[in-house]
Amino acid sequence: MQNKIGRHPERARTDRALLDELLDSLNWGTLATVFEGQPWAVPILYARDGDRLLFHGSTGAGALRHVAAGAPIVFTVATVDALVVGHTTFASSADYRSATLRGVPRPVVGDAKVAALNAFSETIFPGRVAEVRPMNAKELAATSVLELPIEDGSWLFKMRDIGASEPDEQTDAWGGTIPYVTTLGQPRRAAWCSAELPASVKNLLS
Amino acid sequence: MQNKIGRHPERARTDRALLDELLDSLNWGTLATVFEGQPWAVPILYARDGDRLLFHGSTGAGALRHVAAGAPIVFTVATVDALVVGHTTFASSADYRSATLRGVPRPVVGDAKVAALNAFSETIFPGRVAEVRPMNAKELAATSVLELPIEDGSWLFKMRDIGASEPDEQTDAWGGTIPYVTTLGQPRRAAWCSAELPASVKNLLS
Repeated sequence: MQNKIGRHPERARTDRALLDELLDSLNWGTLATVFEGQPWAVPILYARDGDRLLFHGSTGAGALRHVAAGAPIVFTVATVDALVVGHTTFASSADYRSATLRGVPRPVVGDAKVAALNAFSETIFPGRVAEVRPMNAKELAATSVLELPIEDGSWLFKMRDIGASEPDEQTDAWGGTIPYVTTLGQPRRAAWCSAELPASVKNLLS
Repeated sequence: MQNKIGRHPERARTDRALLDELLDSLNWGTLATVFEGQPWAVPILYARDGDRLLFHGSTGAGALRHVAAGAPIVFTVATVDALVVGHTTFASSADYRSATLRGVPRPVVGDAKVAALNAFSETIFPGRVAEVRPMNAKELAATSVLELPIEDGSWLFKMRDIGASEPDEQTDAWGGTIPYVTTLGQPRRAAWCSAELPASVKNLLS
């Protein structure tokens, strides 16, 4: 059951480029693990850096500590691309893309930790690292970083993109899709700030 | 660890109205459970119907069968409301709302199953049930429905909405937020369909 698809095997895709496209278009997912025999999950920001996913958080966060100690995880990302309006409620659905990635995250330490944190920032916010001061020793010590390798056989990508299936019965009902569109709105400057909008923010919005 | 917050307890809110607002603004989340000792998760559509969450799927879906057999789950929903641009990378974050709900889902059967499926459809797509033919016996038999009660103590709601924290150091860096905006785009009629746009779709877009 782990990396196999039962229902709708036609929705599984093995193209790594599709996985990467999905991972790179989102910035959060749900990290699930087992804690004292019970399911446990938390939404968390991530960044893909080549063949690994990066997570970071406070060293005081129980979740990351548990996972950093070697607990297997499954990480889920998904996006609903469109509502699918079928000619019946049974034929109604959603077009979506989703991925689950399995493994045991590894702590990233030392110089690699600094590099990983910069990669994390640059993935979500390109150009920002060069605009602000470097992390200091106290901030580094307060932050833990985990990496989850993206390896053949460790992930599953699913996609439904067929819209409303053609009815196999007479109907005058409407059928089609309604796409979801997510965009970034206008930036809002903090009350304490009087600086001009930096290039990183402008680029993100362009 | 289950329904307690370690880090950032100030982000926890106990107001059920905030939970409901989040649940009603989304339509999918990640259902996580334990299968053969391993974490297991799947993104799935849901609908809130009063004091329960409804899930549905094919009776052939292994995930739902496992959960219907009495496996405890944790269901996670989340939305990133804004990117938070801090004066440092360490101070950068995301404003978000998230909820986890725990319990053992119960199968919904008989007349209650029909009512639950109609409630599911009406929640995601108000008015659609009256526009299409009722589900037939074959479709009903092919669909399983689960409900997860929303009870005091079974859920956890978290929210970060403070934007960019005021620096405790001298800085000329920009700080603020960039909101995410998700909207529904123009409906696309299926190639097989020649019907006019129905009221349910128009209302959803209005």
